[in-house]
Amino acid sequence: MVKSSSFNSKYAAICLVCSVILNLFLVLNTYVGHGRAYLDGLVVDGNGEPVCECNICYSGADCSHFIPDCIANADSGDPLFLEPFWLQHAATSAVVTAGWHRLSYSYNYDGDISKELEKLIRKLHAIVGNAVTENRYIIFGAGSTQVLSAAAYALSPENASSPAGVVASVPYYALYKQQAEYFNLAKFKFEGDAHKWMNKSDGSTYMIEYVTAPNNPDGRLNKPLLQGTNVNTVYDRAYYWPHFTPIPAPADDDLMVFTLSKLTGHAGSRFGWAVVKDETVFNKMMHHMEVNSIGVSRDAQLRAFQLLKAALRGEGRELFDFGYQTMKTRWERLSSIISLSKRFSVQKINPEYCTFYNNVREFSPAYAWVKCEREEDKDCYAVLQAAKITGRQGYRFGAEDRYVRLSLVRNQDDFDMLIQRLNALVSEEDGAKIM
Amino acid sequence: MVKSSSFNSKYAAICLVCSVILNLFLVLNTYVGHGRAYLDGLVVDGNGEPVCECNICYSGADCSHFIPDCIANADSGDPLFLEPFWLQHAATSAVVTAGWHRLSYSYNYDGDISKELEKLIRKLHAIVGNAVTENRYIIFGAGSTQVLSAAAYALSPENASSPAGVVASVPYYALYKQQAEYFNLAKFKFEGDAHKWMNKSDGSTYMIEYVTAPNNPDGRLNKPLLQGTNVNTVYDRAYYWPHFTPIPAPADDDLMVFTLSKLTGHAGSRFGWAVVKDETVFNKMMHHMEVNSIGVSRDAQLRAFQLLKAALRGEGRELFDFGYQTMKTRWERLSSIISLSKRFSVQKINPEYCTFYNNVREFSPAYAWVKCEREEDKDCYAVLQAAKITGRQGYRFGAEDRYVRLSLVRNQDDFDMLIQRLNALVSEEDGAKIM
Repeated sequence: MVKSSSFNSKYAAICLVCSVILNLFLVLNTYVGHGRAYLDGLVVDGNGEPVCECNICYSGADCSHFIPDCIANADSGDPLFLEPFWLQHAATSAVVTAGWHRLSYSYNYDGDISKELEKLIRKLHAIVGNAVTENRYIIFGAGSTQVLSAAAYALSPENASSPAGVVASVPYYALYKQQAEYFNLAKFKFEGDAHKWMNKSDGSTYMIEYVTAPNNPDGRLNKPLLQGTNVNTVYDRAYYWPHFTPIPAPADDDLMVFTLSKLTGHAGSRFGWAVVKDETVFNKMMHHMEVNSIGVSRDAQLRAFQLLKAALRGEGRELFDFGYQTMKTRWERLSSIISLSKRFSVQKINPEYCTFYNNVREFSPAYAWVKCEREEDKDCYAVLQAAKITGRQGYRFGAEDRYVRLSLVRNQDDFDMLIQRLNALVSEEDGAKIM
Repeated sequence: MVKSSSFNSKYAAICLVCSVILNLFLVLNTYVGHGRAYLDGLVVDGNGEPVCECNICYSGADCSHFIPDCIANADSGDPLFLEPFWLQHAATSAVVTAGWHRLSYSYNYDGDISKELEKLIRKLHAIVGNAVTENRYIIFGAGSTQVLSAAAYALSPENASSPAGVVASVPYYALYKQQAEYFNLAKFKFEGDAHKWMNKSDGSTYMIEYVTAPNNPDGRLNKPLLQGTNVNTVYDRAYYWPHFTPIPAPADDDLMVFTLSKLTGHAGSRFGWAVVKDETVFNKMMHHMEVNSIGVSRDAQLRAFQLLKAALRGEGRELFDFGYQTMKTRWERLSSIISLSKRFSVQKINPEYCTFYNNVREFSPAYAWVKCEREEDKDCYAVLQAAKITGRQGYRFGAEDRYVRLSLVRNQDDFDMLIQRLNALVSEEDGAKIM
């Protein structure tokens, strides 16, 4: 349970943090527990108090009971690793919304994008030095998810006889394929691995290449593989923050997609944005947002505004220091275990100069891209599952099932459990040193 | 400017309401001004204080300066008529969100829908008696906008040789056409007025009929025109609340769409929902939300939860009384002017028994569907525009341009200006009595 240490004994049993005010002001610098209670949490016992929502391997009214046979969840990229930062900054990052706040569809200037939030995002990129935003348009979406599909619609030719081909280098983030296969087969069609198209494209076929840099799942700073007048490139920059990668230079691409989820950890807010060079593409994406959802929730925009304001105090140093240290420590713990193994391997990326920190930074990726090295371990997911670890199958990234992605961005309990299970698995190996 | 009367003179110049706490607790029972300031409002002068955002016909630092030549805006359905209700309930409807509130993609039970909000929505429908929700699924979307397109995808057959036909009775809400023409021409195609298809459909063509009840723009409780095994009906129930219509009985349709926008006035939150009978349709719609935006912003869900909780105090009586009285008064003022005119007419709908109020209620529609009766007034929009009134053209509803929709749900200043301009226009008519 999340609670203030000074109120520990007195309130532990009643899930203190449920109350509005206490939410903010009593939750101080401690994050000692294995669950949390929210204002909109499930009310089970009818007394109106939300119950504690426990981390996966814990149960009980105050989430203190450990479930021994628990499976380590390293599946989704739920970015709870940043939650302790926000517990430490509960008051400055809080937002109070009156009932009468912004009922309208439009902000004052008659659009559905908060200009103050847009300004703050430009400032953020300038401070971090990870993207050029001067003379660029900024569009908001419900997470990078909605922004990515808006880009696919906007970059597909109108009234073409055949759909634009959508490609990405293997291993790729599964959503590109899902969206291309779901929304509009007549407009864009998933064509698999970009490598296959490097010499194949005749220049007359319209192509959309998603370039994920750093890449999900393997953290590499991917470069585009296709070029030509009929090729459009969407740069998914979700992980291009000092948490996960050294920033060698500000990205200066035609269409760059970012998300709050992997920056501040607020995946649930569903807030993402794109930085767009071309006015026509921008207008098409705006039209997409309009027809799809009449823009992004103004509540999510207000929350993003408040969170980014809090994050940018002290030039963002505190947030990025926390994020980087956490990810680096996690990577060291995981890779040191894997290094003892002959059965498993993970990606290796060399340290690089980071312009944000003005020094060379270690690799601190969001995910481990694990390979099962034994000939017989063709289904690496099953191998890990048998050891009570849930990863994500290689096929979902267009890769062999000899690969599995393990998420390192989840909450500390999930990560600790992953390390415990991995340690046990590796120490069973013939010839592996026991940690 | 929105402000507390007791602090009136002292703080008028500095846009008092900007501050977090004052937002909630000093804004009491007065709504005397012509603008408001928000936490995320535009900061122009660099001192960090958001400027007041003025209603359309007002300007100046405190929005007290009337712009004499101002055009009355009766265009969009921006539901600001409910803002005074929330000013009166500022404290109970406020929501305080800590920085660490719900970072995750999922609620505790591993979905992206708040179960407590879902419960509250079921309770709301039970109290109002406007929809059957027992044994139905509920899905959330970014406003009814996203829900409506999810329905189109879910109800279109898979791998069909020709697209499903999308129809609605003229006059219809323009979004159905926009969405059908934008998203996926291979899957669904806009086929215009449902009347044309009443005897034409051969039963083998898949059809999707949008039935808007009450209708936007004319407030009628539309019924479906098409029937048959290959016909699917989407009931847009956005206006099926006691504000706008007597509730004759709970709606019991296969797929009903609602939105917070026309219930509480919070258009900007982008929160809507559907009540769905069929499990397969529900699962397809859930998949749509997942691929489109990974569900609805948890911030919007929290806001909706808090607003609906506040609205349901006293069985919702206060909100609906306020909404109904406002809309009824507005309708009376507008229709009494039009009744003096020979040049213009509006729709007439008889009073009906309302099960929510247990008595007969007057018609209190969200929009006036105005007809220009003179032969030469073929462009009714231009006629009104010349009299400094902006409505919405008939063609946008699939109707003749002899019709114009005038929005009655906007803020009081907009409505008052509309009445003033209409009054002037009608009193110029030969033979019309001057009010």
